[in-house]
Amino acid sequence: MGTFKVKVLYDFQAEPGTAEMNINAGDTLTVTRTDVGEGWWEGFNSSKQSGLFPEAYVERISASNPPSIPAPVLPPQNNWGDDDEDDDWDNDDTMYSEIGSNNGQSQQNIYSNEQSLSQNQLANQFDNMSLGGVSTISDNKGTITKKSINIFSSYVKSGLEGYILGTSANLPVSNKKFRIYRDGDDSLGKWEVISNPYTVQIASPKKATKMGGLKSFIAYQLTPSFSNVEVSRRYKHFDWLHDRLTSKFNVIAIPPLPDKQVSGRYEEQFIEHRRAQLQEFINYMCRHPVLSTCDVWVHFLSCTDEKQWKLGKRNAERDQMVGANFCMSIDAPDKEILTSLAEPRIEDSVYYVLKLDQSIKNLMHTAQDQHKKCVNMYKREFMRIGESFFALGSAFEYNQQGMYSKASIDIKNVGSTYMMIGKLYEEQAKMDWQPLFDKLYIYKGITGSLPDILNLQKLSEQKKKECERNSQVPQTALADVRRRADVLTYTVFAELDHFQSERDTDLRQSVKTFLQEQLNFYRNVVAKLEDTLGKFD
Amino acid sequence: MGTFKVKVLYDFQAEPGTAEMNINAGDTLTVTRTDVGEGWWEGFNSSKQSGLFPEAYVERISASNPPSIPAPVLPPQNNWGDDDEDDDWDNDDTMYSEIGSNNGQSQQNIYSNEQSLSQNQLANQFDNMSLGGVSTISDNKGTITKKSINIFSSYVKSGLEGYILGTSANLPVSNKKFRIYRDGDDSLGKWEVISNPYTVQIASPKKATKMGGLKSFIAYQLTPSFSNVEVSRRYKHFDWLHDRLTSKFNVIAIPPLPDKQVSGRYEEQFIEHRRAQLQEFINYMCRHPVLSTCDVWVHFLSCTDEKQWKLGKRNAERDQMVGANFCMSIDAPDKEILTSLAEPRIEDSVYYVLKLDQSIKNLMHTAQDQHKKCVNMYKREFMRIGESFFALGSAFEYNQQGMYSKASIDIKNVGSTYMMIGKLYEEQAKMDWQPLFDKLYIYKGITGSLPDILNLQKLSEQKKKECERNSQVPQTALADVRRRADVLTYTVFAELDHFQSERDTDLRQSVKTFLQEQLNFYRNVVAKLEDTLGKFD
Repeated sequence: MGTFKVKVLYDFQAEPGTAEMNINAGDTLTVTRTDVGEGWWEGFNSSKQSGLFPEAYVERISASNPPSIPAPVLPPQNNWGDDDEDDDWDNDDTMYSEIGSNNGQSQQNIYSNEQSLSQNQLANQFDNMSLGGVSTISDNKGTITKKSINIFSSYVKSGLEGYILGTSANLPVSNKKFRIYRDGDDSLGKWEVISNPYTVQIASPKKATKMGGLKSFIAYQLTPSFSNVEVSRRYKHFDWLHDRLTSKFNVIAIPPLPDKQVSGRYEEQFIEHRRAQLQEFINYMCRHPVLSTCDVWVHFLSCTDEKQWKLGKRNAERDQMVGANFCMSIDAPDKEILTSLAEPRIEDSVYYVLKLDQSIKNLMHTAQDQHKKCVNMYKREFMRIGESFFALGSAFEYNQQGMYSKASIDIKNVGSTYMMIGKLYEEQAKMDWQPLFDKLYIYKGITGSLPDILNLQKLSEQKKKECERNSQVPQTALADVRRRADVLTYTVFAELDHFQSERDTDLRQSVKTFLQEQLNFYRNVVAKLEDTLGKFD
Repeated sequence: MGTFKVKVLYDFQAEPGTAEMNINAGDTLTVTRTDVGEGWWEGFNSSKQSGLFPEAYVERISASNPPSIPAPVLPPQNNWGDDDEDDDWDNDDTMYSEIGSNNGQSQQNIYSNEQSLSQNQLANQFDNMSLGGVSTISDNKGTITKKSINIFSSYVKSGLEGYILGTSANLPVSNKKFRIYRDGDDSLGKWEVISNPYTVQIASPKKATKMGGLKSFIAYQLTPSFSNVEVSRRYKHFDWLHDRLTSKFNVIAIPPLPDKQVSGRYEEQFIEHRRAQLQEFINYMCRHPVLSTCDVWVHFLSCTDEKQWKLGKRNAERDQMVGANFCMSIDAPDKEILTSLAEPRIEDSVYYVLKLDQSIKNLMHTAQDQHKKCVNMYKREFMRIGESFFALGSAFEYNQQGMYSKASIDIKNVGSTYMMIGKLYEEQAKMDWQPLFDKLYIYKGITGSLPDILNLQKLSEQKKKECERNSQVPQTALADVRRRADVLTYTVFAELDHFQSERDTDLRQSVKTFLQEQLNFYRNVVAKLEDTLGKFD
């Protein structure tokens, strides 16, 4: 595969007397070997010192930035890399094709409309407005894929300008369905709690076939607690949904879907794992005060009728309350936000989200690494221990007088026990490291989206200030600009607050569950050793 | 260090997709790197395929066989590589020098005497006797070091010819102090159990100094239960003792001493480990019916008087009941041994000892490997897990309203727990793998000596048959030859029986103790996880 460059994420101290090398966070390394095994890579640093270092401690540096020219539109079937079979609803095929290939087109139209709307009496005064902030929007690998294909800049796509300047279409006040409140003088906003909380269970999927078994696909059965009506959804439906959600929301962090995977997607283990990953996605959605009640999601969860499905899809695709315009549907506190209060908190949040993002990625790498080690290395180590004892016990079998040897039986038992423990390690990884990884994957997607959201708030403030400095903007218009900027700021803080509360309950609960599973595992090891020791007497 | 060749001891299956390579027992590999770390070496096989393989699965091939010409006599101080300080009993210095440099000489004299004695009326008839069997005597690395310097072949050194032909000096019958009995028709001999069993405790040694602190040495305090009188012995005394024992006994397997080590020998951990190793040596000696009562050992355990020490040493060095002649001090059953009974058992034993030797070495390698992994790799893995959780918990500390975060505390606790478990791994290795390794080291020495002993029995039978075939040997002399060969065979079977019984009790007990320690360790892990989980609520 040749060499490639990586950035060091964390310091690593080499074990003296080994082939390992010290690496420091921020260094750039050239990787020369990735097949060392057991999580090690080989490479050299800028001083040409070479050695081994943990793969989990570095991050590949992309060969190039996202292209600034339009990416070629891929044929629709290839867009659904995960699901290249025909749709289960045959009539939907054309509709899905529209989503696959023409969706970009319809998005363009939306933004084009906004563009033309924003060419109003104020907009030309912002022609020279700095868009420098846009380039600092972090590259969220979890959800950026589709975004980067869009030919419009994040800034334009955000609809921020139209929203702040009030040139986007306005909603009737009755449509302000998402309420934000303050629970204290210090509070800068919280989402109103979900009035009718619900859950959605995704059942172990089965491989279904159609056209007399010629075509097969995986359908997941979703049962929302609010209806108790099962709906059948395929990965490509999730993917369409995710695409809609990320198009619509840029002030709300959307949890990531599991990665697309082409090979092995009909294997039982893969399917069951994907089900668990989709359940994590669903859980985050259900717990989010905005996402859990937004139309496209409710449609996704409840529609069983073909015609209704088409209609809902068309509505979703025509939705104009996208990007910053979504703030128009928010019922935020009236109180004006002081920049002196909000600004340092935004700055702190930038730092804190970055720190969280790093530590989540770090633990994810550890979880992935340990998962791999449980299945391979630890299992092998314990198998080897077991085999060594077993071989000794077998050698004891023979004795001078051909007599039964208790020692041989005992030592062979020890061997069998360690081999069993080896197998336990392999099974265990599915119980602790994998669910932890899946949970962290969701949060990595969220922490990866938050910098975009924080940046949007900064751009909104910037735009507001430019209006304030501009003497041609009438005072009445200015009050509206301020109000709209405040609503966006309230939304951003409500979103930060929600994230923090999720982190403190949901992520903490996952760590607790992880610990319980680890405890079960070690208790199991203890029980096995006790049992074996008992046989000695 | 350049490349060197190794022999593959055990099959190893490479993990697919890694840099590992398959290796098969018996292959010869060329090692190109030993600094890969974590127990891996890199090299290539005869088909020039290269890759990584576990160091523990191969054995270095010695550059050359033991020299067949006399090795240069080393200066006495260098012979005592472990203890190059002056003796603690200054008057002993010359005596120790004699042992160091002139000991080989005095051995030569003994064997020379035997040689000249064996030039009697029968001996010349054996001039053409096949010594082919000698070359099959396995190279026992545990105890061979001094032997291989001797310019006489093992065969000649064994004193077997003189003993079988009855040309060695005879002992008065009253001196037959070691009795062998049969406990059934099938039995070919057992040592009479020790009438006064005893133990010897070796206390944690202290670094002592003499000559006003200019010279320092390590003195071990030995307390035999039969006297309760403490004696002080240094490693070089053990070494002298071991030398005497291996010179005297070739039908009895002598447990090996811990390896000499030049560097780090004043480090506390090394000293404590050596104490434990010497205790294992002592334990084996004390439990052996012959070794536990032999003069040189009793002298070593009990002498506190300087003059008596010298006298005892001189007696030991002048002992003529060495090699096969030792059988003259054995009171064996009168019953003649049928070759048809003994021969297949000897053949079976050769196979069984080889199998045991391999499986003991294999488990030793595993124990050493796991010891290393506990101290390095497993510790590091758990530290890394702990650090990842701790970093996440730390990132949780910051929250929007600067509030106390229970989740942060909880997750940091998880981090600390895994770091503690990492440290437990490091400490644990001293409790389970190291003692198991030390015990196996003793048994590796024994199984390494047994092929020599089995071979001696074969040579003895061979010599007996040659006498039987020789018409010039008178019938009366032939009866004595047969009797002496039988006594040697009884001795060999008694020794095999003792080994088997030790193996079934002592080695089994060690495995049990190992298991108990592992159980303690995992119980400790469970307790730590339970404690941490309890803090979540």
